[in-house]
Amino acid sequence: MKKISLIAILSFVCFSTNAQTKDSISMKRIFNETLLNGNAYQWLYDLTENIGPRLAGSKEAGTAVEWAKQKMIEAGADSVYLEPVMVPHWVRGPKENAYIIEAGGNKQTVQVIALGNSVATPKDGITANIIEVQTFDELEKFGRAMVEGKIVFFNHPFDERFVNTFEAYGEAVQYRWKGPSEAARYGAVGSIVRSMTNAIDDYPHTGSMRYNDSLPKIPCIAISTVGANLLSKIYKANKDVKFFMQTNCEMKDSVLSYNVIGEIRGTEKPKEYVVVGGHLDSWDNCKGAHDDGAGIVQSIQIIKTLKALNMQPKRTIRIIAFMNEENGLRGGNKYAGEAKLKNEKHVMAMESDGGGEYPRGFSCGMTRAQFEKVQGWLKYFEPFDAAKFSFQEGGGGGADIGPLQTMFKTAQFGLNTTGQRYFDVHHAASDVFEKVHAQELNLGSVVMATMVYLVDKYGL
Amino acid sequence: MKKISLIAILSFVCFSTNAQTKDSISMKRIFNETLLNGNAYQWLYDLTENIGPRLAGSKEAGTAVEWAKQKMIEAGADSVYLEPVMVPHWVRGPKENAYIIEAGGNKQTVQVIALGNSVATPKDGITANIIEVQTFDELEKFGRAMVEGKIVFFNHPFDERFVNTFEAYGEAVQYRWKGPSEAARYGAVGSIVRSMTNAIDDYPHTGSMRYNDSLPKIPCIAISTVGANLLSKIYKANKDVKFFMQTNCEMKDSVLSYNVIGEIRGTEKPKEYVVVGGHLDSWDNCKGAHDDGAGIVQSIQIIKTLKALNMQPKRTIRIIAFMNEENGLRGGNKYAGEAKLKNEKHVMAMESDGGGEYPRGFSCGMTRAQFEKVQGWLKYFEPFDAAKFSFQEGGGGGADIGPLQTMFKTAQFGLNTTGQRYFDVHHAASDVFEKVHAQELNLGSVVMATMVYLVDKYGL
Repeated sequence: MKKISLIAILSFVCFSTNAQTKDSISMKRIFNETLLNGNAYQWLYDLTENIGPRLAGSKEAGTAVEWAKQKMIEAGADSVYLEPVMVPHWVRGPKENAYIIEAGGNKQTVQVIALGNSVATPKDGITANIIEVQTFDELEKFGRAMVEGKIVFFNHPFDERFVNTFEAYGEAVQYRWKGPSEAARYGAVGSIVRSMTNAIDDYPHTGSMRYNDSLPKIPCIAISTVGANLLSKIYKANKDVKFFMQTNCEMKDSVLSYNVIGEIRGTEKPKEYVVVGGHLDSWDNCKGAHDDGAGIVQSIQIIKTLKALNMQPKRTIRIIAFMNEENGLRGGNKYAGEAKLKNEKHVMAMESDGGGEYPRGFSCGMTRAQFEKVQGWLKYFEPFDAAKFSFQEGGGGGADIGPLQTMFKTAQFGLNTTGQRYFDVHHAASDVFEKVHAQELNLGSVVMATMVYLVDKYGL
Repeated sequence: MKKISLIAILSFVCFSTNAQTKDSISMKRIFNETLLNGNAYQWLYDLTENIGPRLAGSKEAGTAVEWAKQKMIEAGADSVYLEPVMVPHWVRGPKENAYIIEAGGNKQTVQVIALGNSVATPKDGITANIIEVQTFDELEKFGRAMVEGKIVFFNHPFDERFVNTFEAYGEAVQYRWKGPSEAARYGAVGSIVRSMTNAIDDYPHTGSMRYNDSLPKIPCIAISTVGANLLSKIYKANKDVKFFMQTNCEMKDSVLSYNVIGEIRGTEKPKEYVVVGGHLDSWDNCKGAHDDGAGIVQSIQIIKTLKALNMQPKRTIRIIAFMNEENGLRGGNKYAGEAKLKNEKHVMAMESDGGGEYPRGFSCGMTRAQFEKVQGWLKYFEPFDAAKFSFQEGGGGGADIGPLQTMFKTAQFGLNTTGQRYFDVHHAASDVFEKVHAQELNLGSVVMATMVYLVDKYGL
């Protein structure tokens, strides 16, 4: 018996070692193919320079849909199709204006941009006194007596003590998202928010905000960090500073758009789905290279890599270019809703929406048992220095795949990067192709493909 | 007895936990101070934009010596002094010229740069046929019959399959370093090397070469990767291509320069030294932001950080701005030689000379026992995602501190980074301030200071 057990154990060990060796060879092939023959960087150039800004509902977003479909076909997907989704159609209108009016009457122009989904100012703009706050607590303390009739200036800087810049963003972004309604609660007539960035420069960074329907809707803008510092300095020297702001934005009727879906059909379990994607839309003021052209081309590259290597997955891989992440999340919601209607089984969902910087690993929103299984694969990510997996029970891996988590508790993987440069350009005109590095972008795709390979082969 | 043992164990655990907590608090303070009040980025701007290129022996290198001394004083060093060292004085001379002469006579200008320490071409340049090789093996196979009288073109690209770009460099750089003499061995009259970079652009990258004194000294240049691809294409279409190259460089008499040394005196063991540095010189064609302005300012920042926090080390910390790393290593050799003369005890030496990108950890050139101790500190580097320590028994941590390893077997720490962007700009005119990111630079300094804190406190 002892002998047999030993043989059984040895066989298992050998089998296990052979499987690991085979996996390592497959992953090396994925790496080499992506690094040597990858198209992600050229695709990113094409998307950002030849199509450019592509806010959901815009003509350019429509062009991007056709482009993504074409690239998935070129990459070798077994099938490519469009999933219709109605998206909001918010339009910025002609150039926005803003200036500080110092107590003595001197005017200083500052760089601003309306927040996504904001209402416009009256045609001739608003001129009002400023009240600066760093937090909602301060705003509440000032109360209606101090706030009414003024423009609230939320000057909440990024906390540089966060190594993970996404945590700094997470802490500051509430002033963009719900600041306008909180200001309106106390009678403010407008809202300015300091741009969500560590960088001190003159690019204003836009982004979504959401009105509380029970409060008046006031126009809201982001100001560049240079502008914010100037405004704060002038305000602190003399509180009797006025601000002029003029925006022309408008929410029009929803329009038809699409998620773009490319599939590699599974050989053994074609009805089990592995979802990987990013979002195709960008803000209207930027070319969306890091956010999220990078995620789109990294994802499509996975099709090209697996097809070039003739690696047919067991399960069906769905690469998805989601529509309208930026100001509505209609694409992500539509996809999950359709999946529910069809009762589709999703093994995992992965998103790359943190920029194309050097990959670090994944945020893993899943059960503890699933996470333990994933941690068993750490060794495969160490050669890329991308073996940092953080656990978030029930947490998400990205906005677009969030609804799959909510509806099905689908395991989530969010690609994480070094991330120091991302918020420098996030939602600003500086988010351009040149800011993305070819090898860093490719390594991200390799890391994503490696996890797809493992989950497809071994399940979760 | 059992009780006493348990108490003893508990006391030890508590002590150990308290010590760890205290260390964690100290490190958090180092982190916050560096990130919130650091000067490294402003210093880098000053060094690269106001002084600029500073090849050893140049007037600007002299200005940089005074600058470094001043910054170390401002940072709060207990003492700052200059260590004299004679350095080579190689001068490029007026602009270099080169063009391809196609078989039909058509001329195409290409971007080239003489390699450091190269001799010049004759005044009117050299025109000769080309022979392209990828390796020394190929060169040897061609032999004198095919090589004599020609210009050898070493077209050895970076291997993109290395995640660690320094390995790709390590494999390719031999063609720059000894290519000219190997070409001369078979009667070549000149040597061209493909620039040492992954980037495909029109910047030629210079760097050191060394002549084999038993062979004729032929002039040698680097060609941009765009130029290399063009030359290779033309050559492959018709081998009867000629090349014109004209350089004016000259090795002059050695001149006096300095290592700049700033100390924080140790309170308990002032005669034990902890060395940390980078090199102050840069190539003459570039402002040396990543190479190695970054290492210089990260090192000086450690003085500022420790002094601002009133953290007095047990051992003496020596921050060193080494001179002449690029084309002679005279500074590093001089420092170690003086240390030997004075019989100084060095506990460790650390160098940052891999650029200012996101820090990853350290290359640890030390004994296995020392490395095991260092690995016990990994947890302190995990919050920065910089906990990758690689062991290299007897290996070095950087060129300038290498002589300390050779002479004393001093434990070496080389700061490692993500490193994907470094060779894009290394030794090229594109190595400018804008390519360095403030937080990434600061994080490098934090990681260095953290290791200095630990080695100073616990020894090695």
